Amino acid sequence: MSDRKNKQVVLRAHPVGAPRESDFECTESPLADLEDGQMLLRNLYISLDAGFRQWMNEGAGDGYLEAMELGKPVMGLVLGEVEDSRNSDYAAGDLVMCRSRWEEYTVVDGSDYINKLEADPDVSPSCYLGILGPTGLTAYFGLRDIGKVQPGETVLISTAAGAVGSTAAQIAKIRGARVVGMTSTDEKCRWLADELGIDAAINYRADGGLEAGIAEHCPNGVDVYFDNVGGRTLETVIGHLNERARVVLSGALATYNTTEPVPGPYNMFNLITQRATMAGFMVTDYVEQYPEAMEQLTAWLKSGALKNIEDVSVGIESTGPAFCKMFAGGNRGKLVVRLEGAAR
Amino acid sequence: MSDRKNKQVVLRAHPVGAPRESDFECTESPLADLEDGQMLLRNLYISLDAGFRQWMNEGAGDGYLEAMELGKPVMGLVLGEVEDSRNSDYAAGDLVMCRSRWEEYTVVDGSDYINKLEADPDVSPSCYLGILGPTGLTAYFGLRDIGKVQPGETVLISTAAGAVGSTAAQIAKIRGARVVGMTSTDEKCRWLADELGIDAAINYRADGGLEAGIAEHCPNGVDVYFDNVGGRTLETVIGHLNERARVVLSGALATYNTTEPVPGPYNMFNLITQRATMAGFMVTDYVEQYPEAMEQLTAWLKSGALKNIEDVSVGIESTGPAFCKMFAGGNRGKLVVRLEGAAR
Repeated sequence: MSDRKNKQVVLRAHPVGAPRESDFECTESPLADLEDGQMLLRNLYISLDAGFRQWMNEGAGDGYLEAMELGKPVMGLVLGEVEDSRNSDYAAGDLVMCRSRWEEYTVVDGSDYINKLEADPDVSPSCYLGILGPTGLTAYFGLRDIGKVQPGETVLISTAAGAVGSTAAQIAKIRGARVVGMTSTDEKCRWLADELGIDAAINYRADGGLEAGIAEHCPNGVDVYFDNVGGRTLETVIGHLNERARVVLSGALATYNTTEPVPGPYNMFNLITQRATMAGFMVTDYVEQYPEAMEQLTAWLKSGALKNIEDVSVGIESTGPAFCKMFAGGNRGKLVVRLEGAAR
Repeated sequence: MSDRKNKQVVLRAHPVGAPRESDFECTESPLADLEDGQMLLRNLYISLDAGFRQWMNEGAGDGYLEAMELGKPVMGLVLGEVEDSRNSDYAAGDLVMCRSRWEEYTVVDGSDYINKLEADPDVSPSCYLGILGPTGLTAYFGLRDIGKVQPGETVLISTAAGAVGSTAAQIAKIRGARVVGMTSTDEKCRWLADELGIDAAINYRADGGLEAGIAEHCPNGVDVYFDNVGGRTLETVIGHLNERARVVLSGALATYNTTEPVPGPYNMFNLITQRATMAGFMVTDYVEQYPEAMEQLTAWLKSGALKNIEDVSVGIESTGPAFCKMFAGGNRGKLVVRLEGAAR
């Protein structure tokens, strides 16, 4: 055991409803020595993703991820630099992304979910957790393979100021669609119009709510709905789908925090009369197509067609609070935590 | 005005919940003389389709059909023989199918939804309302384009003893799938196994209900679900979907009769983790492909691979009661009413 310490954020309580800061605690533990085949990552950035919320529930494990346990470090996606390696596939200085834990240092071996990055020097490494990582790829593949966005179509994006939403909105614009975004404040509506250049933004908390907002801003109906929310929001949008509309089921924010089951849309019959398609997908199914997608996204980033919208929080201690902020709608774009290591 | 009388079934009351016999009334009215461009059909068969139930609700019109009005003849699909024609496109003796009314005679012109049949002499004309009509075509295109059934896959069929269900079950068998049907009595389960030769049948009213039935008879999960029901049934099946499963939204029997809104599935998130697709469709979108599909279905019928399962009711007066029987699950296969005219 080395003398070095590792700061980690552990799950103190299974969140009930929206996660609270007290559900998380920052602790310190000794760093284990490396065994053969292992390597030590100095983590630079932690990615905060709403989707991980569900695995914080007690016994919530599924085929995709195990349930998180109390007192154990919170699982998450991390970007680190190899500091020391006893694995012949990795050398000091390599940048890797892995599904590991909210912590400053991570000891991994080849059996972990890990991905070596050929980082483009012209973009921030943090992009690989966001717009060039699962976030951006989710927006990219969801719009391409399920949304099948065509120029001139009306694309409605939920949580448009969020990480996936802000990327999806920009990609739909690049694809030539008329893009309408949904968010929770007038201020964020203005930000969406100014910063992302989308065609209209709906404050679903305004008078008349989402129903009135869609009626006003999607007068010709909705061709593609990129859904990060589910629940009643999905139901409202289903009422405005055009014939042969596509609903991209990307996430279900409305259900992550609930203690009561959330009913599905009451108007499923609309899917029949409108010949609509609703399909869920997991970005990890596209892993073989990541390189070509990342190449396209990188080209758009460099040309300025696509902006990397990031909300950066600093220091491992800020991880829990930043995660909670996301569920309160406090972020703009992708939430990442920059760790001490990133400054070196 | 001729002296001839026409018996019609009119809507006496908008059904509340399941339709009742008293919602319909058989009346008699004089038959109008033909004007230029019109023709007189002597109707042979009336098709009874659960889907029409929704347009019996007050103000239920949509882009597909107008709401039915009290005191007016009930709308439905009818097969008739041209008795007299003042339309150069049709001659006496032609067989036509048209969306018209529950009545013995129908006066139509070219602007109605009407379709001249090149009936195969080796099959009953009534087939064109059922297994060679919208019913069979719904099963055919739904399984082909949305279900994308592959040999060896497990296909679960709701209301398998019904018109669409019994056809879908047979087509899925022809396609090489393992077919499991759902129905409401043990007697119908036996009938499904014996008459249709499917692999297993679930009585969803038995102990343990649908959940236990699917667990027992689809131990490897469900690849394709052909849904005629919606509601809680759909929810239960969603819990058993395999990865990349397809849900064919063909009908929503569970919602036609309800006075309270029916919530959608509470487990929509499963569609994401299972990368499942759920899509609605209307068979009328495939009208250009009807001929090739009917050719295939006719070939299967003649070879005996496909059975024409019909439940025949006799006389215009029986139309309302037969329609009600369908919602009580009393029919086997396609319900048709044979009119006096068919006997000539």
